[in-house]
Amino acid sequence: MLRVDEMAQMEVADFGLGRPAETGLQVVVYVNTERVCAKELIMLPRQTWPEHRHAPVAGGPGKEEAFRCRWGRVHLYVPGEKLGPSACRPPAGRKASCTVWHEIVLNPGDQYTLMPDTLHWFQSGDEGAVVSEFSTRSTDEADVFTDPEIQRLTVVR
Amino acid sequence: MLRVDEMAQMEVADFGLGRPAETGLQVVVYVNTERVCAKELIMLPRQTWPEHRHAPVAGGPGKEEAFRCRWGRVHLYVPGEKLGPSACRPPAGRKASCTVWHEIVLNPGDQYTLMPDTLHWFQSGDEGAVVSEFSTRSTDEADVFTDPEIQRLTVVR
Repeated sequence: MLRVDEMAQMEVADFGLGRPAETGLQVVVYVNTERVCAKELIMLPRQTWPEHRHAPVAGGPGKEEAFRCRWGRVHLYVPGEKLGPSACRPPAGRKASCTVWHEIVLNPGDQYTLMPDTLHWFQSGDEGAVVSEFSTRSTDEADVFTDPEIQRLTVVR
Repeated sequence: MLRVDEMAQMEVADFGLGRPAETGLQVVVYVNTERVCAKELIMLPRQTWPEHRHAPVAGGPGKEEAFRCRWGRVHLYVPGEKLGPSACRPPAGRKASCTVWHEIVLNPGDQYTLMPDTLHWFQSGDEGAVVSEFSTRSTDEADVFTDPEIQRLTVVR
């Protein structure tokens, strides 16, 4: 439930790869202080947020974040045993940058909390997804991506 | 959007006053770690959450919380100038425990962030309200209530 003025402030991230429909995300940040952050992630069908971890920041641990699926479906990959055939394929040419394969499927109402410094990537299902993210302070600059071609979060408007 | 099993875990708080429809709240906590907390507050029409502040806790500042109205309307009172006639009356016999009167009206999609140690109380409108609360770790034991008859958060199931 976002306001019209919030929708107008939506950011599109493409991570500098120039293919946001494959590797990218639409984000609306609606709470962001020194201690708390809340975002809505609006994902196109089969869009991928590339593998990364939230490294420690000055004075404390990295970002901790909880994902709660609101609509659609999202497949979250974290360290741990690969449970069987994966429901997702990495974007073309990006398989080497997906190194964790323990799959967690989030349907509406399902959630998962990621502790700091945990590698993770995720991809929406065939219909896309809306996911709420609740976290400690957003520290994008401390994100460490597995893919060496991703330097930082690039925003396309 | 709460799951059925989460609804079944709803807590009803009456603060030991025994009149939860007047002074009380229904709460579902769906994220609660050492650093982040997310709750849904489900308020009956004209229900009041009594005035309190989140005092510092060992090792740091008190709880910081953002309220975002999802449905209905909520009137939030914080320190500052009284802007005119108030839209709310405190519950019967409890007026002395409402000392801050700067009113903020939250309709669906509106939100407000309360910094630690800020006195506040709130009351839902005539239809009730659903409010999402995003905060640092929930530290109910550090809450300081203005009303001396409120000793602690009492939960009625």
